Amino acid sequence: MSNLTPPRGMRDLLPREVTLRDHATSVILETYRKYGFVRVETPALENIENLTGGEGGENEKLVFKVLKRGEKLLNSGTGAVGLDLADLGLRFDLTVPLARYYAGNFSALPNPLKAVQIGPVWRAERPQKGRYRQFTQCDIDIIGMDSPFAEVELILATSDALLALGFSNFTVRINDRRVLQSLAEYSGFQPEAFNRAFIALDKIDKIGIEGVRNELIGTEQNVEAVEKLLDVLTKMSTQQTFEQKKGLLPDQMDRPVYDALQTVIDTVLAQAGGRFGILFDPLLVRGMSYYTGQIFEISSAEFPSSLAGGGRYDKMIGKFLGRDIPACGFSIGFERVISILEAKNPTSPVHSRKLALLFEKTDPLADVVATARKLRDEGYAVSLQVKRPKLRKQLDELALQDFSFFSVFDGREQPPAIKTLAAI
Amino acid sequence: MSNLTPPRGMRDLLPREVTLRDHATSVILETYRKYGFVRVETPALENIENLTGGEGGENEKLVFKVLKRGEKLLNSGTGAVGLDLADLGLRFDLTVPLARYYAGNFSALPNPLKAVQIGPVWRAERPQKGRYRQFTQCDIDIIGMDSPFAEVELILATSDALLALGFSNFTVRINDRRVLQSLAEYSGFQPEAFNRAFIALDKIDKIGIEGVRNELIGTEQNVEAVEKLLDVLTKMSTQQTFEQKKGLLPDQMDRPVYDALQTVIDTVLAQAGGRFGILFDPLLVRGMSYYTGQIFEISSAEFPSSLAGGGRYDKMIGKFLGRDIPACGFSIGFERVISILEAKNPTSPVHSRKLALLFEKTDPLADVVATARKLRDEGYAVSLQVKRPKLRKQLDELALQDFSFFSVFDGREQPPAIKTLAAI
Repeated sequence: MSNLTPPRGMRDLLPREVTLRDHATSVILETYRKYGFVRVETPALENIENLTGGEGGENEKLVFKVLKRGEKLLNSGTGAVGLDLADLGLRFDLTVPLARYYAGNFSALPNPLKAVQIGPVWRAERPQKGRYRQFTQCDIDIIGMDSPFAEVELILATSDALLALGFSNFTVRINDRRVLQSLAEYSGFQPEAFNRAFIALDKIDKIGIEGVRNELIGTEQNVEAVEKLLDVLTKMSTQQTFEQKKGLLPDQMDRPVYDALQTVIDTVLAQAGGRFGILFDPLLVRGMSYYTGQIFEISSAEFPSSLAGGGRYDKMIGKFLGRDIPACGFSIGFERVISILEAKNPTSPVHSRKLALLFEKTDPLADVVATARKLRDEGYAVSLQVKRPKLRKQLDELALQDFSFFSVFDGREQPPAIKTLAAI
Repeated sequence: MSNLTPPRGMRDLLPREVTLRDHATSVILETYRKYGFVRVETPALENIENLTGGEGGENEKLVFKVLKRGEKLLNSGTGAVGLDLADLGLRFDLTVPLARYYAGNFSALPNPLKAVQIGPVWRAERPQKGRYRQFTQCDIDIIGMDSPFAEVELILATSDALLALGFSNFTVRINDRRVLQSLAEYSGFQPEAFNRAFIALDKIDKIGIEGVRNELIGTEQNVEAVEKLLDVLTKMSTQQTFEQKKGLLPDQMDRPVYDALQTVIDTVLAQAGGRFGILFDPLLVRGMSYYTGQIFEISSAEFPSSLAGGGRYDKMIGKFLGRDIPACGFSIGFERVISILEAKNPTSPVHSRKLALLFEKTDPLADVVATARKLRDEGYAVSLQVKRPKLRKQLDELALQDFSFFSVFDGREQPPAIKTLAAI
């Protein structure tokens, strides 16, 4: 028993790190509560069939599976190593469990449900810088509300949370899966090729337009359709406004899809008051195949990857409940945001009233404790510490641990003398 | 994909339940921060060898084990179904991971470390009323501080947290594992029988003194020792004060053990100010074998099981670090406390400013959203909701969801008319 490190790709969080995460969490929750969102919670584990039903896409390959126990394990096939050994799995996101939760509890839930979830998810990915196998997701979802009301609320709430965290000059990029489908259809793609085309398009930031062209021609063998699609997308990307871009979209597009996009863009823009922007981005795809309507991302020129992402998924709850329920969600990239905040300001938010009360082991403990209570009643966060022979070194350490004050216990002093650590 | 329930023994938490848990968590954390505790966090998963090293006692049989992945799984013995299929496990408590965490990070941690942890743990127990397979633990630990300073801080902080949650008239019961050992030795038990004797004694609440006698005679075959031990314990339990009980303890007891118990009892009593009590209980055992010094529990005549429990475990960190570090912890029975609070006050703490802004789908969304922002700026937590034809029924539902106010959007009104839901 001497393995001192956490499992590969997972982290121990030091006090300073937890303080920053707690601060960010409370800022985000406070914003979302103002918008009427309520916290809900599902267990970390789900029955394995709910994590392998296809809704999770590629993430389903990354499930940490939990071994059956007792009789159930003994009765599972011992020869074949595979799914039959596991009956549970750790959730890989908060969306699939929420759909299961809503279907299982809908009669006890508000309608619409405005849910906020902040919690860990697990993925057995290859660990790399900034990517962990346990990480926190931070999602809001509105279930039971049509487009575009829900979209507007989600975008405004998420933007407000990012502003409250100190972000600015970010842009909400918005598209609609039905716009992408129309473009693919108009270009001559077969419906069964749509998803493959979108997955290729999603890589444009990484492999560029030539990379996308090569990949599409390779898989689809339909040079004409590929050229037509990329031609209209390229033309669009040279246009500034939604009006201008819309002018290049094929006629067969549903009018309500455009109208809803226009409403969301106009409403959000009016509320943004110049603090952030929103624009139609026909190249926005979002990875998950469960999206059915508008999709959105928040990004900033300052940072390489996006700060938040989400969209409408009107067909997922129906897979659990048997009837479709409109649903839309927006997820802040919590780990991303934390790493940016850490880089911005490496000193954590200080508890301004943290005080160390230093005492000798020979001091009367009852009096030391009574002094500590007096200081706590005055609003200090008091930590009792045995005074060390090298006081100067001890005070330096305390300053590093975000202590602002110290007091050396002296039974004769009334009230105790409080010194600031910065002054040392 | 149609399993709507969470895994067996695990729970979906409804908004009202999460609200109460969040409230309790923030009350507890606020108290602990005043005492100088800082939050730390370890991953939910630990390397399996750290969960099967013996420190966890019976809980080690209840580990949810995580199947190896990819190559590692294929290379594990396929015939034998057992440990070799799993490389990770979900933590069964917060103490063993904290010991591993401290040993792995001690150079980056404050000394002493005053840690607070609130988080889920998992045990594959047979589910029963009030016992779940995922549940929240709430621990404070002081690592690097000798007895009795740490014990006093832990007991005062935990008592303060319970007082802040609305509990009163509870009693801290305290004992020392070395008192129990002395008594067993004095009665004639062999050292290797001590732990079995303590486990039997621990059942006295359930099986009574006769039950303990029968079990001890059955396992130890040493009638004389059993009678002698039960005789001194029975005599003690008729005495009121620590002084009187101490008079019945055998002479070979270390003087410092008594002195430390006396100091803790006196110091805590002076701080309690009549709001709660503390008493020496020679029958207090606490289940875990890792305890090395003082042990304590908080109970109340109002409730059948204890509200909190803990003790000193000076040998656990040494198993990871190679050298012993004094350590002591106290854990609030979070689920127990929540179920008592729920029973006391079935209506959750209301967000006093929760307001539903009802609108028609034909209303101009930009104006509706602008009104919502105005109300949010005034401090309301505003939820946009489409107005239903049956307004009365909708308002009743909103009242049940802890909404206090509503407003029906009307573009001509300036400012919006706010009505209280209670007045309906």
